[in-house]
Amino acid sequence: MKIRTGFGYDVHQLVEGLDFWLGGIKVPHTHGALGHSDADVLLHVICDALLGAANLRDIGFHFPDTDPKYKGVDSKILLKEVMRLLTEKGYQISNIDSTICLQEPKINPHIPAMKTCIAEVMGIPEEDISIKATTTEKLGFVGKKEGVAAYASVLIYK
Amino acid sequence: MKIRTGFGYDVHQLVEGLDFWLGGIKVPHTHGALGHSDADVLLHVICDALLGAANLRDIGFHFPDTDPKYKGVDSKILLKEVMRLLTEKGYQISNIDSTICLQEPKINPHIPAMKTCIAEVMGIPEEDISIKATTTEKLGFVGKKEGVAAYASVLIYK
Amino acid sequence: MKIRTGFGYDVHQLVEGLDFWLGGIKVPHTHGALGHSDADVLLHVICDALLGAANLRDIGFHFPDTDPKYKGVDSKILLKEVMRLLTEKGYQISNIDSTICLQEPKINPHIPAMKTCIAEVMGIPEEDISIKATTTEKLGFVGKKEGVAAYASVLIYK
Ligand SMILES: [Zn+2]
Ligand SMILES: [Zn+2]
Ligand SMILES: [Zn+2]
Repeated sequence: MKIRTGFGYDVHQLVEGLDFWLGGIKVPHTHGALGHSDADVLLHVICDALLGAANLRDIGFHFPDTDPKYKGVDSKILLKEVMRLLTEKGYQISNIDSTICLQEPKINPHIPAMKTCIAEVMGIPEEDISIKATTTEKLGFVGKKEGVAAYASVLIYK
Repeated sequence: MKIRTGFGYDVHQLVEGLDFWLGGIKVPHTHGALGHSDADVLLHVICDALLGAANLRDIGFHFPDTDPKYKGVDSKILLKEVMRLLTEKGYQISNIDSTICLQEPKINPHIPAMKTCIAEVMGIPEEDISIKATTTEKLGFVGKKEGVAAYASVLIYK
Repeated sequence: MKIRTGFGYDVHQLVEGLDFWLGGIKVPHTHGALGHSDADVLLHVICDALLGAANLRDIGFHFPDTDPKYKGVDSKILLKEVMRLLTEKGYQISNIDSTICLQEPKINPHIPAMKTCIAEVMGIPEEDISIKATTTEKLGFVGKKEGVAAYASVLIYK
């Protein structure tokens, strides 16, 4: 058995009045993430970690933010395509552990719905998808509410 | 054998005159980390990485900073409880690799004592606990000495 | 088989007029990374992740930035030495996944050359080295072009 690690990191600005897509669901908030796609930072880091583990470049390589085709695109479509690429290369997911860095709102109540959504998109058990949340204690661009960041660590095997 | 990855990230503000708990020991310094518990950022990321790997939510879920029970609590108690949760779920630790991001003081001389302490609390060999340290070259909130951050990556199996 | 995870994070300031060494190659740009060595942030995080996985301390421990011996040193020499330390301890590399955080220039066109270079230095297949790139959407010290950061996640085994 060949086991491989992957790691993703991503950032988006928070802007007043935008929809806030996070983990595949719309989180009720005054601000939302800005981006060429729907700017779902959690789905993006999962995509990036999976692509990195399989040595398939990164999300910007596959879905360039200069391509009008991906303007406002639902990131669940990108995640599904990433899963197709991994499956094509013969890989299976061992597990995913992710962290959302956001000063507000509280994300904990939304995590179960995000897990259900991501498990369905990826076609893997919820038990293999962990989502954690932390503030950055008012420090940095996350702490100053200028942006949202996320990390994902994955293990895949064939 | 089922192997799983976990990843933790945490931040605390540095405030003059506070005790500086880091890696289970008190580091002599003019400033210490601010938090509801003893604010030990290294123990917190290890807890979070372990919980994430085992899909057991996160440190804020188990030990909310709104609960007076955890006011000023020694994070070694939290780490012990996290180990109990993992053991209960049948997991063992393969290894932990962690990184402390701090502009000053120099952390390297304290790392052996931290490893001994954490190994004892977790009941695993020191060989399976790595602690690294880096500044952020005077950049960002760590570089400006406003805060301390840490990362942990873990591998667990059953 | 014993499998271990390692994780590296590093930061360098960007300064006008310096050579910009990244992933073992010189990237054409107006600014370069500042450091005691050649300041190659990508090679540094790979070194740190490998050392962490093998519980061999960190890059600052082995190659102190106070040692004139490492003034301006080519980080490929450091990476070769790290590989020697891992091999000596009986470890082999499963894979490396890394992320460069940089606002500009675009790094994607340079990634194939970096992979070729790192694979040659480490003596492992290019298939086991992933390099990803992201901006931080103009946020933080990376977004403000004050610095470059990188992450690496590795899996080793014996
Ligand atoms: Zn994104
Ligand atoms: Zn904490
Ligand atoms: Zn460095």
